[in-house]
Amino acid sequence: MTDSATTTTGYEAIQEWQEQLYQDLHRNPELSMEESRTVEVVVAQLMEWGYDVKRIGGGVVGTLANGDGPTVLFRADMDALPVEEATGLDYASEAPGVMHACGHDVHVACGLGAARLLAEQKQQWSGTYVALFQPGEETAEGARAMVDAGLADAVPRPDVALGQHVLPGVAGTVSTASGPVLSAGDSIRITVFGNGTHGSMPHLGVDSVVLASSIVMRLQTVVAREIAPGDFGVVTVGAIHAGAKSNIIPDSAELLVNVRTYDDDVRERVLKAIERIVRGECATAGSPEPPSLTYYDQFPLTVSDPSAATVVTTAFEAHFGADKVGHLDPVPASEDFSRIPGAWGDVPYLYWGLGGFSEGAKAVANHNPAFAPTMQPTLRTGTEAAMIAALAYLRPST
Amino acid sequence: MTDSATTTTGYEAIQEWQEQLYQDLHRNPELSMEESRTVEVVVAQLMEWGYDVKRIGGGVVGTLANGDGPTVLFRADMDALPVEEATGLDYASEAPGVMHACGHDVHVACGLGAARLLAEQKQQWSGTYVALFQPGEETAEGARAMVDAGLADAVPRPDVALGQHVLPGVAGTVSTASGPVLSAGDSIRITVFGNGTHGSMPHLGVDSVVLASSIVMRLQTVVAREIAPGDFGVVTVGAIHAGAKSNIIPDSAELLVNVRTYDDDVRERVLKAIERIVRGECATAGSPEPPSLTYYDQFPLTVSDPSAATVVTTAFEAHFGADKVGHLDPVPASEDFSRIPGAWGDVPYLYWGLGGFSEGAKAVANHNPAFAPTMQPTLRTGTEAAMIAALAYLRPST
Amino acid sequence: MTDSATTTTGYEAIQEWQEQLYQDLHRNPELSMEESRTVEVVVAQLMEWGYDVKRIGGGVVGTLANGDGPTVLFRADMDALPVEEATGLDYASEAPGVMHACGHDVHVACGLGAARLLAEQKQQWSGTYVALFQPGEETAEGARAMVDAGLADAVPRPDVALGQHVLPGVAGTVSTASGPVLSAGDSIRITVFGNGTHGSMPHLGVDSVVLASSIVMRLQTVVAREIAPGDFGVVTVGAIHAGAKSNIIPDSAELLVNVRTYDDDVRERVLKAIERIVRGECATAGSPEPPSLTYYDQFPLTVSDPSAATVVTTAFEAHFGADKVGHLDPVPASEDFSRIPGAWGDVPYLYWGLGGFSEGAKAVANHNPAFAPTMQPTLRTGTEAAMIAALAYLRPST
Amino acid sequence: MTDSATTTTGYEAIQEWQEQLYQDLHRNPELSMEESRTVEVVVAQLMEWGYDVKRIGGGVVGTLANGDGPTVLFRADMDALPVEEATGLDYASEAPGVMHACGHDVHVACGLGAARLLAEQKQQWSGTYVALFQPGEETAEGARAMVDAGLADAVPRPDVALGQHVLPGVAGTVSTASGPVLSAGDSIRITVFGNGTHGSMPHLGVDSVVLASSIVMRLQTVVAREIAPGDFGVVTVGAIHAGAKSNIIPDSAELLVNVRTYDDDVRERVLKAIERIVRGECATAGSPEPPSLTYYDQFPLTVSDPSAATVVTTAFEAHFGADKVGHLDPVPASEDFSRIPGAWGDVPYLYWGLGGFSEGAKAVANHNPAFAPTMQPTLRTGTEAAMIAALAYLRPST
Repeated sequence: MTDSATTTTGYEAIQEWQEQLYQDLHRNPELSMEESRTVEVVVAQLMEWGYDVKRIGGGVVGTLANGDGPTVLFRADMDALPVEEATGLDYASEAPGVMHACGHDVHVACGLGAARLLAEQKQQWSGTYVALFQPGEETAEGARAMVDAGLADAVPRPDVALGQHVLPGVAGTVSTASGPVLSAGDSIRITVFGNGTHGSMPHLGVDSVVLASSIVMRLQTVVAREIAPGDFGVVTVGAIHAGAKSNIIPDSAELLVNVRTYDDDVRERVLKAIERIVRGECATAGSPEPPSLTYYDQFPLTVSDPSAATVVTTAFEAHFGADKVGHLDPVPASEDFSRIPGAWGDVPYLYWGLGGFSEGAKAVANHNPAFAPTMQPTLRTGTEAAMIAALAYLRPST
Repeated sequence: MTDSATTTTGYEAIQEWQEQLYQDLHRNPELSMEESRTVEVVVAQLMEWGYDVKRIGGGVVGTLANGDGPTVLFRADMDALPVEEATGLDYASEAPGVMHACGHDVHVACGLGAARLLAEQKQQWSGTYVALFQPGEETAEGARAMVDAGLADAVPRPDVALGQHVLPGVAGTVSTASGPVLSAGDSIRITVFGNGTHGSMPHLGVDSVVLASSIVMRLQTVVAREIAPGDFGVVTVGAIHAGAKSNIIPDSAELLVNVRTYDDDVRERVLKAIERIVRGECATAGSPEPPSLTYYDQFPLTVSDPSAATVVTTAFEAHFGADKVGHLDPVPASEDFSRIPGAWGDVPYLYWGLGGFSEGAKAVANHNPAFAPTMQPTLRTGTEAAMIAALAYLRPST
Repeated sequence: MTDSATTTTGYEAIQEWQEQLYQDLHRNPELSMEESRTVEVVVAQLMEWGYDVKRIGGGVVGTLANGDGPTVLFRADMDALPVEEATGLDYASEAPGVMHACGHDVHVACGLGAARLLAEQKQQWSGTYVALFQPGEETAEGARAMVDAGLADAVPRPDVALGQHVLPGVAGTVSTASGPVLSAGDSIRITVFGNGTHGSMPHLGVDSVVLASSIVMRLQTVVAREIAPGDFGVVTVGAIHAGAKSNIIPDSAELLVNVRTYDDDVRERVLKAIERIVRGECATAGSPEPPSLTYYDQFPLTVSDPSAATVVTTAFEAHFGADKVGHLDPVPASEDFSRIPGAWGDVPYLYWGLGGFSEGAKAVANHNPAFAPTMQPTLRTGTEAAMIAALAYLRPST
Repeated sequence: MTDSATTTTGYEAIQEWQEQLYQDLHRNPELSMEESRTVEVVVAQLMEWGYDVKRIGGGVVGTLANGDGPTVLFRADMDALPVEEATGLDYASEAPGVMHACGHDVHVACGLGAARLLAEQKQQWSGTYVALFQPGEETAEGARAMVDAGLADAVPRPDVALGQHVLPGVAGTVSTASGPVLSAGDSIRITVFGNGTHGSMPHLGVDSVVLASSIVMRLQTVVAREIAPGDFGVVTVGAIHAGAKSNIIPDSAELLVNVRTYDDDVRERVLKAIERIVRGECATAGSPEPPSLTYYDQFPLTVSDPSAATVVTTAFEAHFGADKVGHLDPVPASEDFSRIPGAWGDVPYLYWGLGGFSEGAKAVANHNPAFAPTMQPTLRTGTEAAMIAALAYLRPST
């Protein structure tokens, strides 16, 4: 991939196949938990290369047992987004209103590429390689679905789990970090209740608009007063809705709240404070009915294992060159990847970033209708990163 | 009408005709500013009785000049509501989703009944009687439309203007008052602007949900602190809307505010305070764009003239008996009636209530799908009230 | 008093005595519940005129039984204020920091004047006259003290109770009204508790400043949303105090709240709402200790009896002339007078205003250090008003 | 000091002298900017050892030029606190209400100890040593006073500046860090203006209690919404004061606000947001007068130089043993030390922590009346730390 690479991976032999595969995936995006076509593509390929293939919870796991040694799991997510593509690419989405705007097609293509190279080079390593393809990451459903469907029993316990995400960095680079790399994310749908009445007779009701507004103001104190200064915590009320006419006081109001944290204690503290404030304000208002709080889109914290970070970063620097391996700063996005290693309790894991854009080109953020990673060297780097990280565990030390 | 009535009105002769007319109107309700069929009914009748008829601004004015003497104007409104009727009446609405749920069909029938009786009894009075039928009261459009279309030039300046409304009182009774009887009503659509951003990066934007909530809290101080205790003023935020997802901070938020007052000074004070607070909070928030405030559904204050109240109440008591004439307490509903006498500057006016429900029966509030005044004695009382009030001015004193 | 007066009162004979008495009282003001010297003056005079005198709860009651007929009670309050006099009068206060700045010296002088005239003219009336002199009105203590000390048992139940107050109106005039004339007043000392901590570590405590501020904002909704528009209600937070240094979060915060209402139902509603809001906000804040709410300076509602208003107003108009008798608009001040008739349950009462300033002169408000009613015709009008009002009940109709 | 120490410092020879000196300083604490006795002690000692001594801005600087080489400045602060000592020590404060409760007596004793050892061992090093003794740290006045009095001209520009603080750690240990170690601190006295009025007539005034409370609520959004999540920022309203009586709406309200930050950009952002919010809320309230914001007790950020941290930490580990050298976590306290190196523009500096309490003993926090560091090995460690850090620059490399 670069002159400084000290390892040959045999990538050239699969490049044309992979680029075609990638374009096919990009043309045929599927929404979360509806990835049936993608699953068929993945299953067919893994079986062709001799993997023991299982369909679990809407996803696929291919296991390649290759003698004694550690077990390494590499996870790719498969779902697309309800976005109308606006990239102008030759291979743009053919599904109206659906698009691989988060790059999960890159993840699948690289995951299959690494699975193929490892299958074709079994003489170079020893142990067990598990290629996992997950549905429904965007809705926080997929990893849980696979775990609930018996992932831990279907696959040997890995010694390490690996995952990557294409991001607005320079193609050809990867970035790693130890510790928290992605935040926990929790959304809460809060409905609070008043008593509807004519707008000119407020004393005959309980004003749910005032109640909801008061909650919004009070929620500001959670971050400002209840978590330690410098601790990462975000409480956003992204939506507030109540009423339809100026002169009718509505019965109820709805708030959509999003919480982001990098620490489980802080998360617990924030969620408890939100519940206390919502219930307290309802009492203050004389609300006639308890509030309803429904959690949704809950993403766990992603905390890369320090030892895995050292092992893999060292291998990346050896292969790609130190100038191609950067530091992954924590970002307030969320992932359900960590639920996969969590299936076995406390399997260590590493999650790294994969640059996807030409140097100097304007990077477009994930989820944008114009999100279009450059095919190369993105696919090659993502494929080799998965392979090299796995080999850091599976290659016999000599 | 009652044993104690000291005046004969000749009502019996028109009762059957009027009840048929009323049922026809009830079956054929028309929405505000679309009252074409009703207008044709009114025009045909007034012409039949010898009125000089003009179509003005969607309404009708019939003038009957009958010698020297005062000019008296009686106004009836004609429009129905977008309500699906649920009365079960034989003569229920035949227009899907439209209903005379506010009783304006009673007003038209009584207005025509009085016009007929006065035309048939010209020997009993002297002066000019103006029967005015107004469109679009519910949307505050109709009176203004007639004034803008030249009402003041088309009709002689009245010495007094009269109007009535059927209400949830006992049929056979009327209620009058001097001074403020209906509130001024103002609605304001307020849009405030933030800067949208991802919910996890609030520092990159301006949070329009917090801004809108802060305005709601601050608006509470207008009534609590800025008008004199005991002054009537209501500021209701009937609706608040912003955002769609928990993790996206929205660009803007919308509030629908309703203001009710019984005094022009209080109204001015309240509206100024609202504007000051909205603009002040936008500055506080660092809002990137000035707020937009759009007034709509603005109803003027209705203040019955003390002298007219005395004249008409006395006549009512003489005709109906004192036990049938009550006091009309101010209610926080609104009307555009007062714009009609306002066409000539400061013509005094009186607005009275007409009971519409049998004693002991559960009265159903105006605008309810089950609103169904009892035909009698409601029609007779409403017709005689209009006639007696006019004659209080038009009958030569002997 | 005026040419139109149809009654002679014999006032001229006592004028010099009364003016000396008044100046003596003004020179010797006494604070609430410390009116010992004033009590001695009152007792000595009443005994001299043949009253049956009792000392009750810090006050004095003189009863003059004069044959069959109604019992009329007239009440005057005696206490002065902790104000440093700044009138420049010859007869200014000789007690440093204490002043008759509310005109209770006028009340005592007139009360004694009327008692003397009635005693000297016993042949003109029949019944029982009760001259009551009350301590501690300013602190809402005196009326309650007399009631608690057995007033109801010590004195015959009156048929009517009368009281007056010198106000910034024109001397020589009186003003009466039926219904609510003085508001109920309630003060509440509210202490709310947080957990103190260093200002840089808010997460280790509970911020009592934020809690108190949130309560202030929420209290605005009581008047704005919880009482009927147009109902008189005031909720003022007159003081807020917490903390001493910028970087120490204080343990607790104190609010002083004042409530004014003209209706017992509204008062109950407001007080309940305040308690609900304070407790609710403490729950919202996670306050470690229940709030403390202590009521003080509680004044009852003053609601003049309609029948008494008619009887006395008619007598005033007959005596003073209709042009000297005005309407007493309700003012948001408070009094404990109504506790006196309340001692017997539901004795009707009337409370009127007494003008105290020369026409054209700038009236100075009660409680101001420069408050100086003109001696005449204030004293004469106040004396005659008490006498005439009493005689309206006590003079045999012929 | 410990077995693992590889350097001898000659400390034993000065221990008795130093302990006496320390006890004398502890017995004679002096408040900020009143350190005259301490200054005399310092001046006398430095002169005795051959330093070139200058009195500057209430402090003392002793310069020891000893041949070619770098210039190293070591700063100690001298002032005590207005705290009544409650330690029970033999050598407790003899000044009523004043106490060395922050350990500046340790700093002075160690600063003099190091100055003495370096003067006695001039053959071991080459360059210039500057021993600086600063007044008024607690009030943020002293460093500025010395700079304003011409420090930069009076002393050669140092290559590095050093400082230390005794903290609740284990005696015998030191702790260092690179980057921000102490926060910037800013206090703001904010006065906002209303219009006073009687509590029952809020419409005649502008309620400063509501205005101040609204500002407190709005200030919560600064940390919650305007700085990046995870950035360190604290906005505390430590005090709020307005009004004296429940029924008087006060003219003005005062807030004392404290801000803590670890980054100049964040600090600027927070201060601007506070000013915007205060002014915005005053506009919202219709405040009749602009608010007044007065900054006080402003402490700069303390950011240790990375290179100095490496040089000194290495020297500390070599001398004390690695197990005695810990990491200094940033604490939200503040210091004016950085103003001293700031006198010359951008002189790098290092600030380290000195443990002061026996292992297992309960550490008492600075500023507590019971704050009593154990004399040894605290004094020895603090003296040697200053000496070793200086020698890391001054000792010729061989």
